[in-house]
Amino acid sequence: MTTNTTDTSDLMKRAHAAFLEYRHKSGQQKANFLRAIATEIEALGLALIHTAMSETNLPEARLTGERGRACLQLRQMADVVEEGSWLDATIDTALPDRLPLPKPDIRNMLVPIGPVVVFGASNFPFAYSTAGVDPAAAWAAGCSVVVKAHPAHLKTSEMVAGAIRLAIQKTNMPDGVFEHLAGGFDVGQALVMHPLTAAVGFTGSLMGGKALFDLANSRPKPIPVFAEMGSTNPVFLLPEALNQNTEKFAKMYAGSITGSMGQFCTKPGLLIGVDSPDLTKFVEILANEIKNIAPALMLHNGIAAAFQDKRSQILTQPNVTIEAETTTQNTNNEGIPSLASVSGTDFLNNIALHQEVFGPFSLVIKCADSAQMQTVTEHLEGQLTCTFIATENDLISYQNTVQAASLLCGRLILNSVPTGVEVCAAMQHGGPYPASTDGRFGSVGAKAIKRFVRPFAVQGFNDNFLPAELQNANPLNIWRTVNGAFTKNSI
Amino acid sequence: MTTNTTDTSDLMKRAHAAFLEYRHKSGQQKANFLRAIATEIEALGLALIHTAMSETNLPEARLTGERGRACLQLRQMADVVEEGSWLDATIDTALPDRLPLPKPDIRNMLVPIGPVVVFGASNFPFAYSTAGVDPAAAWAAGCSVVVKAHPAHLKTSEMVAGAIRLAIQKTNMPDGVFEHLAGGFDVGQALVMHPLTAAVGFTGSLMGGKALFDLANSRPKPIPVFAEMGSTNPVFLLPEALNQNTEKFAKMYAGSITGSMGQFCTKPGLLIGVDSPDLTKFVEILANEIKNIAPALMLHNGIAAAFQDKRSQILTQPNVTIEAETTTQNTNNEGIPSLASVSGTDFLNNIALHQEVFGPFSLVIKCADSAQMQTVTEHLEGQLTCTFIATENDLISYQNTVQAASLLCGRLILNSVPTGVEVCAAMQHGGPYPASTDGRFGSVGAKAIKRFVRPFAVQGFNDNFLPAELQNANPLNIWRTVNGAFTKNSI
Repeated sequence: MTTNTTDTSDLMKRAHAAFLEYRHKSGQQKANFLRAIATEIEALGLALIHTAMSETNLPEARLTGERGRACLQLRQMADVVEEGSWLDATIDTALPDRLPLPKPDIRNMLVPIGPVVVFGASNFPFAYSTAGVDPAAAWAAGCSVVVKAHPAHLKTSEMVAGAIRLAIQKTNMPDGVFEHLAGGFDVGQALVMHPLTAAVGFTGSLMGGKALFDLANSRPKPIPVFAEMGSTNPVFLLPEALNQNTEKFAKMYAGSITGSMGQFCTKPGLLIGVDSPDLTKFVEILANEIKNIAPALMLHNGIAAAFQDKRSQILTQPNVTIEAETTTQNTNNEGIPSLASVSGTDFLNNIALHQEVFGPFSLVIKCADSAQMQTVTEHLEGQLTCTFIATENDLISYQNTVQAASLLCGRLILNSVPTGVEVCAAMQHGGPYPASTDGRFGSVGAKAIKRFVRPFAVQGFNDNFLPAELQNANPLNIWRTVNGAFTKNSI
Repeated sequence: MTTNTTDTSDLMKRAHAAFLEYRHKSGQQKANFLRAIATEIEALGLALIHTAMSETNLPEARLTGERGRACLQLRQMADVVEEGSWLDATIDTALPDRLPLPKPDIRNMLVPIGPVVVFGASNFPFAYSTAGVDPAAAWAAGCSVVVKAHPAHLKTSEMVAGAIRLAIQKTNMPDGVFEHLAGGFDVGQALVMHPLTAAVGFTGSLMGGKALFDLANSRPKPIPVFAEMGSTNPVFLLPEALNQNTEKFAKMYAGSITGSMGQFCTKPGLLIGVDSPDLTKFVEILANEIKNIAPALMLHNGIAAAFQDKRSQILTQPNVTIEAETTTQNTNNEGIPSLASVSGTDFLNNIALHQEVFGPFSLVIKCADSAQMQTVTEHLEGQLTCTFIATENDLISYQNTVQAASLLCGRLILNSVPTGVEVCAAMQHGGPYPASTDGRFGSVGAKAIKRFVRPFAVQGFNDNFLPAELQNANPLNIWRTVNGAFTKNSI
């Protein structure tokens, strides 16, 4: 692997040269490539899982599931580009006799924007890293990809990179369609600033994502940065539902807060209710559950240190009560499943309590009344998710809070947990800033691909100079908008 | 009209309050509103045209045509939102028995992002100003709109604002869905920096657009700026076509360079050919045409001064030859139709020659050979358009140049002129930076609307808590993606 900044320019030139070739590949060819990557990753078998276990401290079942998700993403994107309708092919045919001026023939489809630089996530070594959703989406779009391996799982990244290189060989793609390197912030900076870089994908902290966003906007030619960053994923515990199923929801949330040691971007970090005996009972049951969850090693020592630090920052704020914590920590690098609480008034008055604690920690906000819950909602920042634990009566009584929460988030969930992001076309994974740098896109399915394309119109060209997607006969049989009508018909 | 910065905060609060109501309007209601605006603008009759003539120096026929375009845009967007399929409604239904985990019901559609601040264009007082494409797109999306009137046509803007206010009354929309104010850069800055502003639309200079882009990114919560800025719109004159139709293309381009005194963002500012007797003949004919075009007043004195200044900057560069200029200028505020030429080598060595001259001026680049034409192409910045004057043989011989030009621009045109932007679904008006701040969007039709929305997913909600677009019965009869299939069927 390349590991220093002096090589990044050569590497970007290779990625750009490959892009010039790869962008002409058909949807079928790109689909074959994406599926071959999935196959080669699976072919690495347990060796890959064991390497990832040693680098991330995540358990085998979790990593096996995540590998499945990464391969599912690759194959879903393959299906999308193979089918082809995602390209938004739009055709307005000529009206040569129109007065006062003839109408020209104009045809439009999405085209790839260029080499995409990807920074992988520490918490998803497969699904949000080297062959994760950002590279998969960029390849699906027709872009080449430069991955800066996450320093916490370099060996895993190199194994996945090997699988990608095999897939490149087997499907006859240009080598530079994938470049892989390691390095520190200086290497990342050189990649983002390189004139041939067209876009950036990032999954990680707000500080990291914002730094890349600012760098990219400081370029002579600014480029988009799609960073998925922090989220506290507020959960609204409404009274009738809480009364009816206190224990069920408390147990459900104990799992959601502490699963994978809380190292999910969708971990519920704020639990918001109106102070009441039912809320007290919910907190008691949840606290008892959390106390009994064994600490486990976090992804790496830096993450563990950051967790301890941010947890302490919250716990030392005025009027914050610790409701539960496990006390059997074996090393400093283990997460401590914890639950704390604070009043709505204290939360509103103290912005320090609004920050994400990445790890197995959640803060209960006990609001004085429903009006204060509304005020709390209106003071929250952008979120990946908001969740309501609510009956139909609750949803009606608290409709203003539901509306306020809708404005905040990318996904609104009813009577479930935000963790566990279903990989399907309707999913939205992304949200208003600071959840994402651009909440107008997501990182699942066709929405993820559309980050890396732009509309491109051709005017006055005959069929023999048009790509198949825009030819009169519609040889790919895709859905197109022709003279305003949605159709698969030929012209 | 509000005219000072102290009022902007109240105004943004009104726009935000109106957004909270307006975002729930149906596609039908929004369509009625957009159509009512067009009707009320037309009802202003000749008084509006005459006011615009006095403020912009544009002739009656041009302004009448532009008013038609503005009303067409409003009605086209009305059609799009009334029909409803543009919302990308996507539904994945639940699989409660799936193993190892049940699949939840997830439904997704585009929702508006919030109040949009619009800065109108000097050169399009109707189609890119107060009720122009940016406000129309934002209203279609479900956003409220704050327009800062262009200082060069305040009276025209106020008349159009009156039409919009009548349409608001007649279709019963919240007043704050449209706010209108005047002011200088300080007012614009206050609007862009206000926490309730969700996005910015701008049409104008690179300097102006970039300043707003940088401001918006400096906010605690950055917001997108959709600025359409400068473009030189290169035209590639390929040899066989030039030989066959020298006179036809020369006369066509005389009109395109000087129409409306060259004050179009798509005016062809660079004409690129390989030096040859045919190119010389083309330049001669074009020069003769341009010499005979009468100067006319430019939009305003500032634009006229900037034109004189930039034209002089080009003409005083080493080895630039003036090929034609009209000499009958009556006042300093008239544009001087002009044509100059330079060698490919001098163009490559002098970045000062790459800048846009907004007005009736074009620069011929005489390349030594086809290889130099390729090099010139690879050194151009992002463009709204690139045009080829070419036979089929030319397109094959120069396919590398066609490819390089495709990477640069939003629209590729064959054997026509870039001026005259057809308002249709397939049009792309926008291009890679610096043509636009975000070339992944356009400012015509549904593509323009999509700048102001974001995907929003709901998980686990029953039909009675879903918007009509996502209900099982598909009561609006829109195209939706249901479990991966494109359909209008109910569930």
